[in-house]
Amino acid sequence: MTDGLTGRYAGVRAAVVGTGLIGGSVLLRLADAGLDVAGWDPDPATRELARARGLAAPATIEQAVAGRDVVFLCGPLPTLAGTLAQLATMTAPGCVLTDVGGTKSEVAQVADQLGLTDRFVPGHPMAGAESPGLSAASAALLAGAAWVLCPAPGPATDAFRWLTGLLVELFEARVVPLSASAHDSAAALASHVPHLLAGALAGAAQRASLRETVLALAAGSFRDGTRVASTPAKQVANMLLGNQARVLAELTEVQEFLDGLAAALRAGDPAALTARYEEARAARSTLLDRRFTGRDQQFPADGEHTAEVTWLRGLGEAGGHLTGCQVGADTVSYSASLPLAD
Amino acid sequence: MTDGLTGRYAGVRAAVVGTGLIGGSVLLRLADAGLDVAGWDPDPATRELARARGLAAPATIEQAVAGRDVVFLCGPLPTLAGTLAQLATMTAPGCVLTDVGGTKSEVAQVADQLGLTDRFVPGHPMAGAESPGLSAASAALLAGAAWVLCPAPGPATDAFRWLTGLLVELFEARVVPLSASAHDSAAALASHVPHLLAGALAGAAQRASLRETVLALAAGSFRDGTRVASTPAKQVANMLLGNQARVLAELTEVQEFLDGLAAALRAGDPAALTARYEEARAARSTLLDRRFTGRDQQFPADGEHTAEVTWLRGLGEAGGHLTGCQVGADTVSYSASLPLAD
Repeated sequence: MTDGLTGRYAGVRAAVVGTGLIGGSVLLRLADAGLDVAGWDPDPATRELARARGLAAPATIEQAVAGRDVVFLCGPLPTLAGTLAQLATMTAPGCVLTDVGGTKSEVAQVADQLGLTDRFVPGHPMAGAESPGLSAASAALLAGAAWVLCPAPGPATDAFRWLTGLLVELFEARVVPLSASAHDSAAALASHVPHLLAGALAGAAQRASLRETVLALAAGSFRDGTRVASTPAKQVANMLLGNQARVLAELTEVQEFLDGLAAALRAGDPAALTARYEEARAARSTLLDRRFTGRDQQFPADGEHTAEVTWLRGLGEAGGHLTGCQVGADTVSYSASLPLAD
Repeated sequence: MTDGLTGRYAGVRAAVVGTGLIGGSVLLRLADAGLDVAGWDPDPATRELARARGLAAPATIEQAVAGRDVVFLCGPLPTLAGTLAQLATMTAPGCVLTDVGGTKSEVAQVADQLGLTDRFVPGHPMAGAESPGLSAASAALLAGAAWVLCPAPGPATDAFRWLTGLLVELFEARVVPLSASAHDSAAALASHVPHLLAGALAGAAQRASLRETVLALAAGSFRDGTRVASTPAKQVANMLLGNQARVLAELTEVQEFLDGLAAALRAGDPAALTARYEEARAARSTLLDRRFTGRDQQFPADGEHTAEVTWLRGLGEAGGHLTGCQVGADTVSYSASLPLAD
C-alpha cells in the first residue's frame, strides 16, 4: 500500500492529532499515500520521533490543523472533548473531523453540543497491537480493518460519504456504518468485555500461589486469553469507563453463560457441558468462515438522506460493511458486502 | 529438526496410540528423527491417513506396541484408563509408558492401581492448534514446548530420567517436573479456566441480538479471547471434567478478580480500575520477558531417589524446567533453567 491517491482524493490535506499507536499508523499510511499530512502530539518526544521517521510534526496543534480537509482525532478518550472544542474554532467549516476512540456515544454527544455534527463523523477502526505508542505504529496496521463510521442525516451524510471513500481507498477499510449506540453495544461484547476477562485471568495468575508454574505452563489458551491485558492500564480504564453501562450489561450476559458452564461442570454433566461448547463453537465457526454477498445501492445525492442513513445503519446491524462510495451529480452509489446466513 | 538420534537413543523403538493432533505430531517427529515408530488409532480412516503420510500404522494395537521401548498414549482422556490396562499386558516390563493428557492425577492413580507406576510417567506437552486431527498434526508442533513430566521415587525415577532425555533430544522440550497434583492445580489456571472464559465469551456472542455486528467488529481481543472455543466440544468437556474440583476452585479466583474489576467500573473509579489492570499487566510482563539462570544438579544414580524427586518437583513449582539429563555409572546429572526473580 505505497501507491498514491488519484481522482477525488488527490491533493487532500490531512492532519492527525495524537500520534500514538493508532494515530501514528494513520499518519504513516497517509504519508505513504503521498498526501500532504501533518501530525501533532502533546508530547514533544513523540513529535521528535515523528520527525525522525520523516513525518511533518509542527510544534503547535494550530499549525498542524490549519487549512486541512480532514483531521483524525487519535488522542486518549478523555481528551477528545477538549480537542474537539479546539478544532471547532481552528478548522474551516468544510473540514471533516473524525476520531478513532473505542466508544462513540459520548463523543457524538460532545460534537453535537459543539455544533459539529455536520462535519464530525465518529469513527473506530477495529485494530490494535500489543505495544503502544508511535514506535509500534505502522502504515500496515489498519490495512483491511473493520472501521466503524457513524452516519447521520442532513449535511453530516456528505462528510460520511466522503470519509468512507477515503478510508476504502487508503486503508482498504471495511467501513461498518452504525449508530453510535449500536456501535457501543456491539463493541462492549466484541472488545470491552474481552479486556475484562483478560484482566481477570492475568490478575488471578499474578495472585496465584503457583504463579511461576502457571506462567511456565502458559501456552496457547493462557497467552491468547491474556494478550490484551498488556494494553496500558489507563487506556483500558478509559475505554471501559466510556462505555460503562453497556459493558456491565454485556458482562452480565457473559457471566450467565459462564455460570451455565460452571454449573454443568459442577454437576459432572458431560452432555450439558458439550452442548454449551457446541453453542460457543458456532460463533467461532461463523467468525472464521464469514461469507458475503455483494450488494449495490443508490440514493439521491441531495436531500435529507433519511432513507440512506436508515439503510446504512441496517447494513451494519446485519453484519455488513461498505467497500465503496461514489458520489455523482444526482446519485450516491454504495458497494456493500452482506453476510450470508449460516 | 530432521536430524536423527545418536548415542543412547539411537535404535529406540517407539509407538504412539491415538494419532490425532498431538499423537500425530509426536509420531511425525519420531519418524523424522529416524526412529522405528508405529502409530495406531482406533479409527481406520486415521490409520489410512497415517499410511498416506508415509507412517507405519498397523491394523491392531497389539502389532503397533509389540516390542517397543516406549509408548505414547495420546487418545482422548476417558480412554486412557482402558488403554493403560491393555498396555499393561501387551508391553514388556521394561517398556516406558507416558501420556499427553491435559490432567494428570486421575491417570496417575489408574497407573498405580494397574501396578504401572514404575514405568508410567504422566506427561503433558503444553501445545495445541486450532484444528484437531492428524491432518492438522506436524512434526514441528511440539518443538520447544513446555512438557510436564511427573517424577516419582523408586524405579519410576529411571523411567522419568530416560524420557526426559528423549524429549529434550527429540523435541527440544523444556521438561517441567511436577507432581500430578501441582500440575493439575497450575493447569487449571494456565489452560482449563481460559477454556471456560473463551467458551463464555463465544457463547454470549452467539446468543447476542447484535451477533452479526459483534462478529463484524471482532478484532484482536475477541478473536484471541475466543480462539480455544474452537476446540472440539467433547475434548474440552473431558478436560474440564477430569480436573473438576481444581478448575472450579481456580474459576472462583478469576471470578473474584473479575468482580473487583466490575465493582471499580460500576463505581466509576478510574484509580481502582487502573490499579487492578497494573496488577494484571505484571503477569503479562513476566510472561513475555521470563529470564532464566542455568543450574546443574547431580544425584546418586541408584537408591530411592527421594531427594532427587523432591528437588525436581521444587524446580517445577519454582517455574523452572530441565534442559538435559545424563545418567552415568554413579551419578545422574540434570541441566536446569530457573526463572530469575522479577
